[in-house]
Amino acid sequence: MRDLEELKARVRAFVAERDWERFHSPKNLAMALSVEAAELVELFQWLTEEESGALDGAARRRVAEELADVLWFLVRLSDRLDIDLLEAAELKLAENAKKYPAEKVRGQSKKYTDY
Amino acid sequence: MRDLEELKARVRAFVAERDWERFHSPKNLAMALSVEAAELVELFQWLTEEESGALDGAARRRVAEELADVLWFLVRLSDRLDIDLLEAAELKLAENAKKYPAEKVRGQSKKYTDY
Amino acid sequence: MRDLEELKARVRAFVAERDWERFHSPKNLAMALSVEAAELVELFQWLTEEESGALDGAARRRVAEELADVLWFLVRLSDRLDIDLLEAAELKLAENAKKYPAEKVRGQSKKYTDY
Amino acid sequence: MRDLEELKARVRAFVAERDWERFHSPKNLAMALSVEAAELVELFQWLTEEESGALDGAARRRVAEELADVLWFLVRLSDRLDIDLLEAAELKLAENAKKYPAEKVRGQSKKYTDY
Repeated sequence: MRDLEELKARVRAFVAERDWERFHSPKNLAMALSVEAAELVELFQWLTEEESGALDGAARRRVAEELADVLWFLVRLSDRLDIDLLEAAELKLAENAKKYPAEKVRGQSKKYTDY
Repeated sequence: MRDLEELKARVRAFVAERDWERFHSPKNLAMALSVEAAELVELFQWLTEEESGALDGAARRRVAEELADVLWFLVRLSDRLDIDLLEAAELKLAENAKKYPAEKVRGQSKKYTDY
Repeated sequence: MRDLEELKARVRAFVAERDWERFHSPKNLAMALSVEAAELVELFQWLTEEESGALDGAARRRVAEELADVLWFLVRLSDRLDIDLLEAAELKLAENAKKYPAEKVRGQSKKYTDY
Repeated sequence: MRDLEELKARVRAFVAERDWERFHSPKNLAMALSVEAAELVELFQWLTEEESGALDGAARRRVAEELADVLWFLVRLSDRLDIDLLEAAELKLAENAKKYPAEKVRGQSKKYTDY
C-alpha cells in the first residue's frame, strides 16, 4: 500500500463490489468509526499506562487491527464527503500551533487542555 | 503535506516541542482518539442520513476538522507503538475480503455484520 | 431490584468478591462505560432510524443488555466518586430547562443544539 | 427526585414540551448517549489513575454533570424502547455471576476480561 490515495481507491472498490454504498451515509460511517475507536479503547481499559506502553506481540497485533479499522472508516468517510485528509491535518497543525504556543505550554499541566 | 510519514514526523515534533510525551501513553492516546471520534458523531447525531449527505460548507469544514483530530491521534498512537498504518490497512483489507466474500454478501442486509 | 441504591450495593459486593477494586479507578471506569456505550451504538449503526424504532424481540433483548452494561458502570463510577446520580439528574434537568426554554425551542431545528 | 420512574416521567415531559420526540429515534439516542460518555472520558484522559481518584470539588461537579447526561439518555432510550432498566440490570448481574465466578476470578489479571 503506497499511500492514503491508494487506500481510498481500494476501500471504495471493496465497498462497491459488495453494494454497500447504500449503508454508507456520513452519519452511519461516523457511528462505525466511533465503534472502532471504542474497540481500540477496550484493549487498554484495564491496563496501567505503563503496561499500555509495553505490549507483547499478540496485543500489539490486536491494536494494529483496530487502528486499521479506524483508518478504514476515516478514509471512507473522507472519500464520501470529498475531504482531503492530509490537507485537513495541515490546517489543524497550523491552528493547534497558534492555540498551544510551545513556549507557553511547556511544563504546564495538560489537565484542562485538549492535546 | 505529502503523506502519512510527513504527518507523523510533524506531529512528533509538535509534541516534543511542548514536552507532551509524558502524557502520551498508548492508553491515554486511545482515550483521546475515541473522544475525537465522538466529536465527529456529535455533528451528525440529530441529522437524518439524508441531511448528513448534503452538508453545507460550514458543516463540512467542521467535519474536516474532526477527521483531522482523529487522524492526529491515529498517527500519534501508531508512531508511539511503531505500527505501520498502511501495512495494517493492507492486512485488514485482505482479511475482510475473506470474511465478506463479495458474491455472498451482495444484496444481503448488513444488520448483523460489521462493515 | 428495587432501586438504584440496591443496584449500587449489589454491584459493589460483586466487585469486592472478585477483588476488582484495584482496576476500578475513575479513569478506567469512564473508559469502560464509553466502550459499553459503543456496543450499544454498534447495534444501531447500519439500521435506518425507522428500523431502530421497530426492533424485533431478539434485537430488543440485545439492546437491553447493553443498556444494563452502561448502567452498571454508571452506578459503579458514581459510587466510586460518591456522586448521587438522581441528585445530579435533578440539577441537570433544572439547568436544561433554562438552557432550552420550551417556548423558544419548539419547532426549531435541533441541528446545533445538544439535546 | 425519588427514583428512575420519576426521572423517566420528567424527561418524557421535558422532551414533549419541546416537541423533540421527532429527533429521538433509538438510533439517534444511542449516538447521543455515546457522545455524553465521551465527554466523561475527556475529563479523565490526561489524568493519571491516581489523580482520577482524587478530584477536587470543581472537577467532581463536572463529572457529576456528565454522569447526569449519560443517565438522561439512558433513561430516555429505555423509555423509548419500553425496557425496564432495573430488570435488565438484574438479569445482567445474574449472567455476570455465572460468567465470572468469584472463586475463579479472584487474583487473576483482568487484562482479557470485560469487567
